[in-house]
Amino acid sequence: MRLSPTRRSTPTRLRERASTDRADLYAVLDEGLVCHVGVVRDGAPVVLPTGYGRIDDTVYVHGSTGAGWLRVSDGAPVCLTVTHVDGVVYARSVFHHSMNYRSAVVHGPARVVTDPAERMAGLRAVAEQLSPGSWEHAREPNAREMAATVVIALDLAEASVKMRSGPPGDEDFDIEEGGRWAGVLPVVTTFGDPEPDPTLDEVATPAHVRNR
Amino acid sequence: MRLSPTRRSTPTRLRERASTDRADLYAVLDEGLVCHVGVVRDGAPVVLPTGYGRIDDTVYVHGSTGAGWLRVSDGAPVCLTVTHVDGVVYARSVFHHSMNYRSAVVHGPARVVTDPAERMAGLRAVAEQLSPGSWEHAREPNAREMAATVVIALDLAEASVKMRSGPPGDEDFDIEEGGRWAGVLPVVTTFGDPEPDPTLDEVATPAHVRNR
Repeated sequence: MRLSPTRRSTPTRLRERASTDRADLYAVLDEGLVCHVGVVRDGAPVVLPTGYGRIDDTVYVHGSTGAGWLRVSDGAPVCLTVTHVDGVVYARSVFHHSMNYRSAVVHGPARVVTDPAERMAGLRAVAEQLSPGSWEHAREPNAREMAATVVIALDLAEASVKMRSGPPGDEDFDIEEGGRWAGVLPVVTTFGDPEPDPTLDEVATPAHVRNR
Repeated sequence: MRLSPTRRSTPTRLRERASTDRADLYAVLDEGLVCHVGVVRDGAPVVLPTGYGRIDDTVYVHGSTGAGWLRVSDGAPVCLTVTHVDGVVYARSVFHHSMNYRSAVVHGPARVVTDPAERMAGLRAVAEQLSPGSWEHAREPNAREMAATVVIALDLAEASVKMRSGPPGDEDFDIEEGGRWAGVLPVVTTFGDPEPDPTLDEVATPAHVRNR
């Protein structure tokens, strides 16, 4: 299924870096730990990092009822962006320095989720994105915790994916001149060794953490 | 020097995670490769990833004159956010799952830089943030490249820093119940081995890339 292009979801330049494949959108979203959500407050943008999760064509974010920035009214315009930096692109010229990256940008009205089942499903998606396996292992939210939580849904109806990979795109005259290094320095994100909570009492590190 | 708090740069909750130290702001900004810039277009937020650089209390971003999203008018409100994810925080409860992170959020009017010297200095700061040493090694921008480039400045007058570190903050009753793992899985970002450009002809990998 192709993404639905609109003016704001259609990149204005370097179109060869844009993807219209929904599978690419899912792949970029599903690999991330954090998204950056933009809202408009008093006419100015506010961009904050937060966790998120996806179910089919809906992305969920959650927050505390006390968090001002998530107190968006139902239908308020939001933008949710997920970016993976894959490498630093060194070119012969400063101008052609770049990044290898994959990014997904989702535009749309915020939907404040009120249905209890969807609220729980959305929170589960957020938890599984951050820490797959945790929903089964950890205690599920209780009524008090649910009451303190806002769940926001965003449809993937209007979204764009942009990617860059591969070597730099130097000018021919810079390549011919020679003498300057060019290439890619990969940026690699990995998980370190689990650090058990100091208060933990004889609980082995479970597979969903150990094998991540 | 303390950061200047305003309503929108004052976190509404978890204030113990907020820092008012300007050194923390610099540290978070100086370590990043990518920021997320939010602008308002037709009343809706647009959040896009891009490189950036800092000189003293000014952050610079740059873009192509053909890039619609950076065609902000002088004085337009923007928000620039840099986030480092340091770990996934596993708690006994789903509710207390979290992330260890450091983030800086800068609010302010965009200033379209027109002074040629400041434009060049801003581009140098962006290049040095992405690839320290490249400005000396690579060919500097020529007149044609400068004409194709927009440089935007943002003062660090209104900014906030938020950080979380350490183990999860579980409820006492969850700790007492036992049986569930809790702890932190560090998220580590490193550089891989340099990948020379296929067109490169006998240029050794320079120290500023090799030793990064």
